Amino acid sequence: MNKGLLLVISGPAGVGKGTVIKKLLENKDYVFSVSATTRSPRTGEEDGINYYFVTKNEFQRKIRANEMLEYAEYVGNFYGTPRSFVMSKLGEGKNVVLEIDTAGALQVKSQMPDAVLVFIGPPSMENLEERLRGRGTEDESVIERRMKTAKKELGFINKYDYCVINDDSAWEKTAREIEAIVLAEKHSVKRKNVIIPEKNNRQ
Amino acid sequence: MNKGLLLVISGPAGVGKGTVIKKLLENKDYVFSVSATTRSPRTGEEDGINYYFVTKNEFQRKIRANEMLEYAEYVGNFYGTPRSFVMSKLGEGKNVVLEIDTAGALQVKSQMPDAVLVFIGPPSMENLEERLRGRGTEDESVIERRMKTAKKELGFINKYDYCVINDDSAWEKTAREIEAIVLAEKHSVKRKNVIIPEKNNRQ
Repeated sequence: MNKGLLLVISGPAGVGKGTVIKKLLENKDYVFSVSATTRSPRTGEEDGINYYFVTKNEFQRKIRANEMLEYAEYVGNFYGTPRSFVMSKLGEGKNVVLEIDTAGALQVKSQMPDAVLVFIGPPSMENLEERLRGRGTEDESVIERRMKTAKKELGFINKYDYCVINDDSAWEKTAREIEAIVLAEKHSVKRKNVIIPEKNNRQ
Repeated sequence: MNKGLLLVISGPAGVGKGTVIKKLLENKDYVFSVSATTRSPRTGEEDGINYYFVTKNEFQRKIRANEMLEYAEYVGNFYGTPRSFVMSKLGEGKNVVLEIDTAGALQVKSQMPDAVLVFIGPPSMENLEERLRGRGTEDESVIERRMKTAKKELGFINKYDYCVINDDSAWEKTAREIEAIVLAEKHSVKRKNVIIPEKNNRQ
């Protein structure tokens, strides 16, 4: 019953995933999954903290050996989730948080049907666009591209188990809702057959 | 999204259902479903508070008119859940709590597939028996009968959506777990298709 849960979180750029996940990780029962990549480390990035930096050969070997829960190629580099990290943390009873796009999320669900998929949505498309503009750092073409990607990703919401709406500055509420989802799932009967023992389990 | 949820709670006698439900009802989003019965009111019992007291004819008419979500006959009297009360409270956005046995719970689920069924179990059968004895008011034959009924009811756990274990004096934790289940279910995608609107919904 106390085994950890694999929590996959997706949502469009600008929806506030990062802030919600940061809040969630204040709870020590949660741990963030570190991705592997074949791209070079940027200044300040540390191996095993920001990413596991691996060679292309090594990454491809991991794919063939089914050591990746999901992966994607993006502008010539591979990015993916190493299975071993996730499994070892779940075994320790931690809830493992993956922040990935819809394609990755569906790959994970097919490999780990017990994973819980949560989509973080904006209250409206208008609100999402305002937030993207509010960052002030992106030019019009970037915003347009992000809105287009967002619309595509939103088309996958109903493949997810849950959808929470991240209202402006309500990220604490959103994080609490995700914690409630995890707590509820741990009591879900479909997750495992419940057996009440004859005698108390003295742990 | 804000419509209330129908919450069906079962569990063996002695498991502490009453205390957990009392705690849950401190939250004003929850309301307890008042049953209908054909038995006579006992001293102090009020119509519409403890039960809806109805005649046998009226009860049978309600059954025929499909106005009962579930019902059972017990030592010559009918007991059941009037659909109208439940529907009106759900419409007001309240979460409606039904405390019924496993047979009734499965009747409700077949009529209202959106109902969420929660079983409150003891940490062990030994612990349940200790609690039944601890009441000190029941003789041996009553305890034996209750343990037999409990074993039978526990056979239905895996027909429920969730099972929470009510440890000794942990009823606040159990109530919090049930609240988490309700909150999670309200964000469940299978419960309804999620559509992110173009513009903010000004309410």
